[in-house]
Amino acid sequence: MPYRAPVDDYQFIFDHVVDLDQVSQTDRFSEATPDLTNAILTEAARMCEDVLHPLQRVGDQNPAYLENGVVRTPPGFADGYKAIATGGWVSISAAPAHGGMGLPMALTTAVNDMISSACLSIQLNPLMTQGQIEALEHHASDAIKDVYLPKLVSGEWCGTMNLTEAQAGSDVGALRTKADPNGDGTYAITGQKIYISWGDNDFTENVCHLVLARLPDGPAGTKGISLFLVPKYIPDDTGQPGQANSLSVVSLEHKMGLHGSPTCVMQYDGATGWLIGKEHDGMRAMFTMMNNARLGVGGQGIGVAEGAYQHALAYALDRIQGRTPIDGGTGAIVDHADVRRMLMTMKADAFAARAIALACAVAIDMETATGTAEWAARAAFLTPIAKAFGTDTGIAVADMGVQVHGGMGYIEETGAAQYLRDVRVSAIYEGTNGIQAMDLVARKLSDGGEAAHALIDEIEAQAEAARSTLPDLAEPVWQASETLREGLDWMLARSDLNQRFAGAVPFLRAFARVLGAHYHLAAALAEGGTGPRSALARFYLARLLPEHEGLLAHATAGTDGLYALSPEDLSA
Amino acid sequence: MPYRAPVDDYQFIFDHVVDLDQVSQTDRFSEATPDLTNAILTEAARMCEDVLHPLQRVGDQNPAYLENGVVRTPPGFADGYKAIATGGWVSISAAPAHGGMGLPMALTTAVNDMISSACLSIQLNPLMTQGQIEALEHHASDAIKDVYLPKLVSGEWCGTMNLTEAQAGSDVGALRTKADPNGDGTYAITGQKIYISWGDNDFTENVCHLVLARLPDGPAGTKGISLFLVPKYIPDDTGQPGQANSLSVVSLEHKMGLHGSPTCVMQYDGATGWLIGKEHDGMRAMFTMMNNARLGVGGQGIGVAEGAYQHALAYALDRIQGRTPIDGGTGAIVDHADVRRMLMTMKADAFAARAIALACAVAIDMETATGTAEWAARAAFLTPIAKAFGTDTGIAVADMGVQVHGGMGYIEETGAAQYLRDVRVSAIYEGTNGIQAMDLVARKLSDGGEAAHALIDEIEAQAEAARSTLPDLAEPVWQASETLREGLDWMLARSDLNQRFAGAVPFLRAFARVLGAHYHLAAALAEGGTGPRSALARFYLARLLPEHEGLLAHATAGTDGLYALSPEDLSA
Repeated sequence: MPYRAPVDDYQFIFDHVVDLDQVSQTDRFSEATPDLTNAILTEAARMCEDVLHPLQRVGDQNPAYLENGVVRTPPGFADGYKAIATGGWVSISAAPAHGGMGLPMALTTAVNDMISSACLSIQLNPLMTQGQIEALEHHASDAIKDVYLPKLVSGEWCGTMNLTEAQAGSDVGALRTKADPNGDGTYAITGQKIYISWGDNDFTENVCHLVLARLPDGPAGTKGISLFLVPKYIPDDTGQPGQANSLSVVSLEHKMGLHGSPTCVMQYDGATGWLIGKEHDGMRAMFTMMNNARLGVGGQGIGVAEGAYQHALAYALDRIQGRTPIDGGTGAIVDHADVRRMLMTMKADAFAARAIALACAVAIDMETATGTAEWAARAAFLTPIAKAFGTDTGIAVADMGVQVHGGMGYIEETGAAQYLRDVRVSAIYEGTNGIQAMDLVARKLSDGGEAAHALIDEIEAQAEAARSTLPDLAEPVWQASETLREGLDWMLARSDLNQRFAGAVPFLRAFARVLGAHYHLAAALAEGGTGPRSALARFYLARLLPEHEGLLAHATAGTDGLYALSPEDLSA
Repeated sequence: MPYRAPVDDYQFIFDHVVDLDQVSQTDRFSEATPDLTNAILTEAARMCEDVLHPLQRVGDQNPAYLENGVVRTPPGFADGYKAIATGGWVSISAAPAHGGMGLPMALTTAVNDMISSACLSIQLNPLMTQGQIEALEHHASDAIKDVYLPKLVSGEWCGTMNLTEAQAGSDVGALRTKADPNGDGTYAITGQKIYISWGDNDFTENVCHLVLARLPDGPAGTKGISLFLVPKYIPDDTGQPGQANSLSVVSLEHKMGLHGSPTCVMQYDGATGWLIGKEHDGMRAMFTMMNNARLGVGGQGIGVAEGAYQHALAYALDRIQGRTPIDGGTGAIVDHADVRRMLMTMKADAFAARAIALACAVAIDMETATGTAEWAARAAFLTPIAKAFGTDTGIAVADMGVQVHGGMGYIEETGAAQYLRDVRVSAIYEGTNGIQAMDLVARKLSDGGEAAHALIDEIEAQAEAARSTLPDLAEPVWQASETLREGLDWMLARSDLNQRFAGAVPFLRAFARVLGAHYHLAAALAEGGTGPRSALARFYLARLLPEHEGLLAHATAGTDGLYALSPEDLSA
């Protein structure tokens, strides 16, 4: 089943929905002209369609495995990775000083999205490296940068994130991995890390681990955590991979999906590491990496949504079943109202999620280019929404993709189930979607709701302006934003954070629903209210947007009655 | 991870929510005393907990396979099946004349639910047999009944349903399997059937296939379909399995889940079959079987919801992470608001789905006992809701179960993912949930909405009566039922069925949401408004019930704009 990268969709969203133009008008990103943007999207699309997508089923059917301590990757993955690396797709947004293209995160986000559609398992590898590049650019010494960044940017080496330990998952502060000073400026890292995506491979010269660990004098909790760079092979004086470090892959996990991507248990036995950033300040550096990765994981969900949608649509256009209920129908199941409803839902939600992610990326780019607090706040506010709604959409769309296939959807050979199995983890890793929602209602509202209100103001302003031209579309968006604002104010009035946490997940989803409506309206406005994007917007506003009211009722129920059942009652 | 069958929950629902007492007061079911009911539930619970649940992981890890044309089942499945058969659990509701217990379908439903929690793969086998028993009881000749029913009832033989062909899925009328008269009263069946659950096994003496096929003079479409009984081994004069029939298992499917249950491609090469019911009247007999199976599949979803809930709760009570946000908390993640929200949602929805299924079963029993059209209409109306909401709940709860586990949820060894992979098919087979919803808004409203309005009347009557004692619970149920009635009236006013079909799925879900509220209110009333069931009801009413408004907006959008995107636009 072929995949076609939706270049026109990215381009339309850039031009008419998230205003990439404002980014390319900054000095920092002046090279990101529309022509260059389009050339990059087109070139990446070709690789995704021709080289990467054929690897998707291969990876599922030939899982990565451990052989004598080395991870063996699925057939063809080495070539797929090479195409990504040599195309420069690891480092679209990396600094030119180390070989990157220095282009906007919006472009990286679009390309990551399409690589995710094509083959999610392999995409996770460069995604982790991108986060590492950004962390090192911000926090590493020049000496470290000079050795590592050119190799990471070129894709000759790749990077991983090592946070989780068996007893320290969402609670990173509970980690026990130790870092003992060696006396020569390096540290001896000892401990075990789990869930390390792409912890090893057989196609890059080196694998560079960013490891959270505690110095001997590190206080308990997150305040005592430092970040270390721990390469598989220690670079020699010429910067080439030298002596093997004291680390190993203990085992690979058997996962529900993403079989092509090795998820490693990593053992560090006094491995040599280099401090990145300041002592005890590892969480700050890690958050640089994680915020990047969170948007990236949101993009994974969106990419899978696109892939699953195209896959289901192809089936629905081909599968003949029953009589068509419409005049001039195709005769295939795409004519049936419920199938059409599912496909329209998939397409409308994929658009909404993509627009949110690209709006987040544009905010990051504007923050980078202008350094203003407003853009930083916007980027910070949108990141958990982009992550959670992007991945929830990926899961929901892949699930509908299975359903569109009927019985065939449950048969693995069809490939529909793989999308669902693969994408399911995206709601869990890089901070579960529950953690994202808690971040949204706590840290991201710690400005008193300024960033949130500013966003709702923009939504209302566009809706107000659209009232004269597209009243049928403007009115529901305006109404929904008012309801959302009430929900926001409810949250802000709760000083007890647990009251907010109780409804954080439905609140985040309600916010995403309304944001999605805002971007659909923008698309319709760009079309003058007629055309396929306007039709999709009308579908979304009439059928999907109304969900926000029930979500906000849920969101604002607080902890009232939440703990009314004791653990014994829950078990009864 | 142990499973504990929720015997008290079934008993409570029987006693206080769906009024099983009215069933046991009929002549037909006078034996179904509370004592007997409780004894049966307790006995079945023991088997599920001790014998069947240990097979769940085994079946996933040791899939059924085909060896020299015979299906080999996972280790222990033969013993598990034997426990089901010798316990009489295949035939709780089968007629005593052939060895059945003759007890209410409500009991069968409860026991199927718990077998599904314990091991879904194995449960699918007796579920298919139950449908076959019912079809034969209603439509077979006495000669057929005498040979087959005692063997099916005892579980020595088992039964399957053969509807689907490659080109005939939801459109059963497109089937091509032929039935040619042999001249001796039997027929030669020729064709290929797909997706045949438990099409063969290595632990029953015989496998009896009910096969839909077309006689030489059968008109096109469903009106030309007849039903045939086609045994793997043709019974000899003594009724024992004799000569092998001309049928074979061609292959097994590789599925997303349910690995322990062989899903067969069956080939019939002039296999000897016996007509069941009248010529060209196969669909009617098949619907007897399918209605039974639809409620049963709904029960599969509920059973998996229960299993996944218990599994996730055990993890949440055990897993220490972060600081507890509540006074006197356990310190485990069950204390965290979002985890608690998920667990409460899982429990509240499992209750709602279970009550709906048991109310449907009680309606079937009252139909059986009284023969009144009202009970028949109630049973018919509730069946698609029980099927679709039961399975949607199974999937949603299993999905939340994965999420509660965090990273562990994605690792297969944990078992959380298996619940999700196993139950996913339940929204597809026995008529996709889209087909269920179309059945609800078309055939089940073809009485002009009489059955639907009668049900809403009951909901309102209970809410009215509860106003004086539990106003905080009664009011939202009453309001919701009014909104639902408006949605129902919208549906009834649409003579173009495709207008109804466009919103059938959200309409069914909205109806289930309000029904769930009704049964939660009944539970709270039985407790006098205080106690854990009342607390669960309050949770449901405040947080989950509000979903119905958005669903009804979706449901009543009709085909407006649904087809605004052409196939080319959809592909753009």
